[in-house]
Amino acid sequence: MPLIRVSLQAGKPAGYRQAIAENIYESLRETFNVPENDFFATVDELEPRDFLYDPKYFNIERSDDLVLIQMTVSNTRTVEQKKALYRRIVERLAKDPGLRPQDIFLNLVEVAKENWSFGNGEAQYA
Amino acid sequence: MPLIRVSLQAGKPAGYRQAIAENIYESLRETFNVPENDFFATVDELEPRDFLYDPKYFNIERSDDLVLIQMTVSNTRTVEQKKALYRRIVERLAKDPGLRPQDIFLNLVEVAKENWSFGNGEAQYA
Amino acid sequence: MPLIRVSLQAGKPAGYRQAIAENIYESLRETFNVPENDFFATVDELEPRDFLYDPKYFNIERSDDLVLIQMTVSNTRTVEQKKALYRRIVERLAKDPGLRPQDIFLNLVEVAKENWSFGNGEAQYA
Repeated sequence: MPLIRVSLQAGKPAGYRQAIAENIYESLRETFNVPENDFFATVDELEPRDFLYDPKYFNIERSDDLVLIQMTVSNTRTVEQKKALYRRIVERLAKDPGLRPQDIFLNLVEVAKENWSFGNGEAQYA
Repeated sequence: MPLIRVSLQAGKPAGYRQAIAENIYESLRETFNVPENDFFATVDELEPRDFLYDPKYFNIERSDDLVLIQMTVSNTRTVEQKKALYRRIVERLAKDPGLRPQDIFLNLVEVAKENWSFGNGEAQYA
Repeated sequence: MPLIRVSLQAGKPAGYRQAIAENIYESLRETFNVPENDFFATVDELEPRDFLYDPKYFNIERSDDLVLIQMTVSNTRTVEQKKALYRRIVERLAKDPGLRPQDIFLNLVEVAKENWSFGNGEAQYA
């Protein structure tokens, strides 16, 4: 059910990009009770001039390795679960592919459970 | 008012991609009472390594022709209308450009009516 | 906290694209009380066949210079603030990079304050 959108500057190997998406999925499994195999993600590589960020907002020192991660999820999680998700994503991406915690920007977009169809035109969660 | 975002693997002809967007619009017209000519859509072609999905989640057999469709709409529709939309999109895309029902992933993001401006800096639906 | 997504047809100079993103940020500063340096944006250039719009919806005459702007923000603003944002974006983009008001399409996606992490795995606004 999550739809994961990863945006980063162009130039990283495909395995690096895939590791980001897969570890986000694993983090969602661990903290949001996302079902096994519920994995859908896109990765957008952007030129530096099309990937704009402040390098110090909130006193966090960002580099050009910044990754913007936007996840659309159902609106059924608590604030504590969201905090656990953020921590877990940063832990996992620090290990693989080796991102700095400062370079991980996260955003959740929440939707109703009936706002998904995983195929066949059915609203599987409604 | 809907903003349609279509993501799929690169390699399909432009007409194929355009048929997807146009038939989503027609389905929104038929089930969500979207006004005539309210058609705004982007199509993102991604390399296979940047387009990640589980080929069997929910026991649905997906292929590399999978299309991820994210539609931002106003929050004024019922669950029944959403179900009708999903069914209609699958019917239409099965005919043109000929998608398998298993390869159609749908997600709705809902926003308030005043969250749109169609030009001139006015909130036309507020 | 806003995450700005700009989509437009390919072919404009980098400075033109950057001016759009930066003036959206300045408009958010002026009308939404966005903190200084809270600037994160992506720009997607699309081929004409992947950038679909109606040239007359709502009796607004759009050109191929149309820009689709989707902003994810916290759900703390009034309708009046939203209207002020739309007006301000159009004023600013008319000056730099010189967009026609008819060519500015705006959409806000609202999320809870705890739905953001700006780095380090913390929910800075929770």
